[in-house]
Amino acid sequence: MTIVTKSATIQTKGNCDISDITSEVTAKVNESGISNGTVTLFITGSTGAITTIEYEPRLLSDFKNMWDRVIPQNIPYEHNKTWGDGNGHSHVRASVLGPSLSIPFVNKRLTLGTWQQIVFIDFDNRPRTREIVLQIMGE
Amino acid sequence: MTIVTKSATIQTKGNCDISDITSEVTAKVNESGISNGTVTLFITGSTGAITTIEYEPRLLSDFKNMWDRVIPQNIPYEHNKTWGDGNGHSHVRASVLGPSLSIPFVNKRLTLGTWQQIVFIDFDNRPRTREIVLQIMGE
Amino acid sequence: MTIVTKSATIQTKGNCDISDITSEVTAKVNESGISNGTVTLFITGSTGAITTIEYEPRLLSDFKNMWDRVIPQNIPYEHNKTWGDGNGHSHVRASVLGPSLSIPFVNKRLTLGTWQQIVFIDFDNRPRTREIVLQIMGE
Repeated sequence: MTIVTKSATIQTKGNCDISDITSEVTAKVNESGISNGTVTLFITGSTGAITTIEYEPRLLSDFKNMWDRVIPQNIPYEHNKTWGDGNGHSHVRASVLGPSLSIPFVNKRLTLGTWQQIVFIDFDNRPRTREIVLQIMGE
Repeated sequence: MTIVTKSATIQTKGNCDISDITSEVTAKVNESGISNGTVTLFITGSTGAITTIEYEPRLLSDFKNMWDRVIPQNIPYEHNKTWGDGNGHSHVRASVLGPSLSIPFVNKRLTLGTWQQIVFIDFDNRPRTREIVLQIMGE
Repeated sequence: MTIVTKSATIQTKGNCDISDITSEVTAKVNESGISNGTVTLFITGSTGAITTIEYEPRLLSDFKNMWDRVIPQNIPYEHNKTWGDGNGHSHVRASVLGPSLSIPFVNKRLTLGTWQQIVFIDFDNRPRTREIVLQIMGE
């Protein structure tokens, strides 16, 4: 059993920008030299989150519309009175979706479906440089 | 430390069909021969998701009603224009709930509560055959 | 590679009580003697959940308001007819947010952001004593 920790830096546009990080995660798993194990992905920061989705432009639009409908930006947030940076909705959305994802891989292949990509969602209301931690454990 | 990867195949009815997979997960953990560790469960596919719930018929009905209320099927989805398979809502729900779950076990016992079962939810709009990956790591 | 399982007991007030457990998780990781690895946090029970958030009082209020808006307490739940304990909304919320969280640590430091705390949310409708499982794996 071996453990390898890596990180990936990505630039986002904010405002529910959805980045496909599948190829980067695949590359880091390959670099680790580990054949079978789990990659734990973790988002450092409290206005970003991670999940999987079929990375299809119209579906990404549906996903964004859902957040605008369910946890809207344009309603009052107490948090916005504290810091005045207007991203109360970003924090609430990120906490609901969550910062961690664990994906097994077998013979160096992630166990994703054909139409299933790993995505980082930046809920903040401005462009950000983000760090994603990848911890690969296995043998 | 050892790592064992298994999979479980389940038949679903789709349309928010909720399957209790606790006994299958317990059995696979026992088969692994590992006494203490974590089982990482991962759903291959982008219209299914995993969580825990008290597997009580009326609560399952409440859970389904919540999805119909918060992320309804009968509103327009852009994704449905792309493929015409009418499952835009299925994808959005699955991405929110998420494809992975990590559960520790101690002395071969999952650390679940008495009224807490592991469930696979098939949000797709038709019956599906699904594969769930179980990766068991420990000693 | 080593594996250490610990647990933390916390008292909550229920009704969406949000407890910052970051310092307790940090302490348990330090006690484990493991320098690099992942801590898997798991909530035993079906009316509590775990995530990360900026632990700022006004944001916590926003987070609670979101649950009251999206998965309200004061609508009919079938589950409440089964047990009569009035916590149907608690179960549904907990299943959506989820019971597990995996956080990598490097050189004994959790890879959290400065404004990102680990929180346990007790959605039940009464004070509870809760057990959180921490499983630490690494080297």
